[in-house]
Amino acid sequence: MTQGRTRINRALSGEVPPGPLLVKGWVRTVRRTKNLTFVALNDGSCLESLQIVVDTDLPGYAESTNLGTGACVEARGELVASPAAGQPWELHAHELRVLGAADADYPLQKKRHGFEYLRSIAHLRLRSNTFGAVFRVRSALSFAIHRFFQERGFLYVQTPIITANDCEGAGEMFRVSTLDPIDPPRLDGAVDWTRDFFGERTGLTVSGQLQGEAFACAFSDIYTFGPTFRAENSNTSRHAAEFWMIEPEMAFADLAADCRLAADFIQYLCRYALDNCSEDLKFFDNFVEKGLIEKLGSLADAEFQQLTYTDAIKELQASGRTFEFSPVWGSDLQSEHERFLSEQVVKGPLFVTDYPKDIKAFYMRLNDDGKTVAAMDCLVPRVGEIIGGSQREERLDVLAQRMREAGIAPESLGWFLDLRRWGTCPHAGFGLGFERLLMYVTGMTNIRDVIPFPRTPGNARF
Amino acid sequence: MTQGRTRINRALSGEVPPGPLLVKGWVRTVRRTKNLTFVALNDGSCLESLQIVVDTDLPGYAESTNLGTGACVEARGELVASPAAGQPWELHAHELRVLGAADADYPLQKKRHGFEYLRSIAHLRLRSNTFGAVFRVRSALSFAIHRFFQERGFLYVQTPIITANDCEGAGEMFRVSTLDPIDPPRLDGAVDWTRDFFGERTGLTVSGQLQGEAFACAFSDIYTFGPTFRAENSNTSRHAAEFWMIEPEMAFADLAADCRLAADFIQYLCRYALDNCSEDLKFFDNFVEKGLIEKLGSLADAEFQQLTYTDAIKELQASGRTFEFSPVWGSDLQSEHERFLSEQVVKGPLFVTDYPKDIKAFYMRLNDDGKTVAAMDCLVPRVGEIIGGSQREERLDVLAQRMREAGIAPESLGWFLDLRRWGTCPHAGFGLGFERLLMYVTGMTNIRDVIPFPRTPGNARF
Repeated sequence: MTQGRTRINRALSGEVPPGPLLVKGWVRTVRRTKNLTFVALNDGSCLESLQIVVDTDLPGYAESTNLGTGACVEARGELVASPAAGQPWELHAHELRVLGAADADYPLQKKRHGFEYLRSIAHLRLRSNTFGAVFRVRSALSFAIHRFFQERGFLYVQTPIITANDCEGAGEMFRVSTLDPIDPPRLDGAVDWTRDFFGERTGLTVSGQLQGEAFACAFSDIYTFGPTFRAENSNTSRHAAEFWMIEPEMAFADLAADCRLAADFIQYLCRYALDNCSEDLKFFDNFVEKGLIEKLGSLADAEFQQLTYTDAIKELQASGRTFEFSPVWGSDLQSEHERFLSEQVVKGPLFVTDYPKDIKAFYMRLNDDGKTVAAMDCLVPRVGEIIGGSQREERLDVLAQRMREAGIAPESLGWFLDLRRWGTCPHAGFGLGFERLLMYVTGMTNIRDVIPFPRTPGNARF
Repeated sequence: MTQGRTRINRALSGEVPPGPLLVKGWVRTVRRTKNLTFVALNDGSCLESLQIVVDTDLPGYAESTNLGTGACVEARGELVASPAAGQPWELHAHELRVLGAADADYPLQKKRHGFEYLRSIAHLRLRSNTFGAVFRVRSALSFAIHRFFQERGFLYVQTPIITANDCEGAGEMFRVSTLDPIDPPRLDGAVDWTRDFFGERTGLTVSGQLQGEAFACAFSDIYTFGPTFRAENSNTSRHAAEFWMIEPEMAFADLAADCRLAADFIQYLCRYALDNCSEDLKFFDNFVEKGLIEKLGSLADAEFQQLTYTDAIKELQASGRTFEFSPVWGSDLQSEHERFLSEQVVKGPLFVTDYPKDIKAFYMRLNDDGKTVAAMDCLVPRVGEIIGGSQREERLDVLAQRMREAGIAPESLGWFLDLRRWGTCPHAGFGLGFERLLMYVTGMTNIRDVIPFPRTPGNARF
């Protein structure tokens, strides 16, 4: 009886029904001996390839001369225990068919390529071991994020991408428009945005938090998971113009509850990766970051410490260590400070809380001291900040005052103030940059290598 | 012993630990008698509100005079079986605290408001029965979409939002830029896009399909689920400038396999909604679309019929019915044709396949007749088209020729052609507009009412 295609991860598990198997995939390597050809076939369902053993007597074998690296092939045959080391099963082919040939120009030959070269062929790097593993982990953790929140009764909300709120957070915004770019309608020497598609000036969102707060003030516990944007011309290994963020928001929560959720969330994701992506994580541990699995395991089991910003500054000042930037109360913590705190001071993950109000956003709740706000950053060894959050200012008058101090006209966010005008409630939330998390979990050190088709200054290819 | 907050859906289930309960939420209605006040409290965890019974002797009751509709309240008390009809449990308050007052200006008073008015307070309509139900279903079905694909071994890929491909599909694109809008750099009288952020002209994606194909040609089975955009100035109840799409893509699949996946997918989502959103669906069935639950149940159990486009045209022509647009071979099917086919001809859901190539996109696989392509539209009663898909053209020369015919320079999508140059494979996929599905499942008739904060011509508020 003919069966449909069996995925290679299932074939390699050996748990398949009796009878001939049909597998399809792309050739990673071909090795020929006098009587046999060995083809390593990969279909992206797992890291490992399945070895196909082809007898040169096989009808249609002649065709297999155009069986180069990169070719797409289907093979039907018997799954048998493999005599070769490192693979439990191999397929003895009865039938072999090349669906799509690949010649010697195929850009992904067997030799190891540098990541920079692979970025230039982002549509093909997916067929390499490293990027296969990266994007399997990305998919698994995306699902884990939804599972985590849905299991806890959080509502998922897709907040808007195009926004007219120009004060959502820090960072430059991309403009979105359909006006004639060379000769836009003008009014008093400026562009007349009232004639644009949305009737006002719009850009790409830098955060879904403000809209998330509206949802939390109706559904209590919500989360967003969507793309966000920064038009910053910074060509670093940690910045992209387009990236995905997760932003939970909880009504009736204070800063302590916010920290608890953040710790549970990170630990859940580490454990999920360890349980569900073990083959790919082993690969990263071997070839990308030694000790990765141990790092994830210890974060999954760690106790998160807590330190106020004021105490953190004292610790840094008392450390006797020379930093590039001197730690001074009132200045933001630098990456070197954050890593020192987690790696040397508490030797593990921690929350730094209660930052000076002047270095934090207007919507963070003012503490009773009048100087600090109920903000938290979650710092982890080797990376520094991985999550930033806060309790939100729920008092109408205080919020309006903070907006004025930040140079934002309260009227421009009237709807946001309405949430405090009627039925206001304490609430808190945080944001996690998904790619930062992926870099942590895979050990990849360039954000361009954990995004399917990264967008950075000068690059919107593919 | 003090417990944390209990969600109202759990309180209403009666399955709570013994002892006093703490609930928090927003007041829907207040009814006062001489000795008692009855407060309907809702926290968004379910449609139903919990009745809080407050004795006027309660300490702090005086405070409850500012307990109007919309106020945010916490109440602690005993959950007891309710003597009132239609609610199994109510809470006898020992303690009541107003967290956030709401005065008589609160825009969402008890009376029924029209949907158009509610759109003008999209940040508050979330606290109404209808929109509570809509966004709970939206969240549940978002998760169901991920579950469906992950259970079947499909990899989730987040395709880019900002794109330089200007031929992704039909429809006008929004421009994304950081150039000076009033005085952009010029070259030969045109805007010099090489000096823009990405070094070329970019816009917002209309589909993740092309990038999804690259992933399918490495991981075999993949899906996207993300925002897409149309800069069309059409103010209809079915069009939005920003909406979410689901686009699966399968290597080694033909059109028949594509149709099977589409039918399984729709039926899974209907069943998931029936099983997991029954309280909200009952509400829609009572107040929004009579017969909704039966409609969903019959789609979940239906056999999907199949009809070629050519046969569909014959059926329409032979029907003797007068249509606004005459059905003619070579023209696209109109909504009236689609509904007639599903409601009158096959009396259920169906796939129309093999459309004339000239009315379909360049990437659809050319059939052997040279005139039609392996496209499919899935039509359902009352709506018409809900899914569109195709087998993709995997032959390099045919695809390049089809691009030239469509006026697209093959070099402009060199990476897309590369997928056919090396290791090409048959593959197929489809797209489902998430909001169209939500309209079908909830019975809501305006797309603005199933999107958290809709973007339409002239409107990017909130």
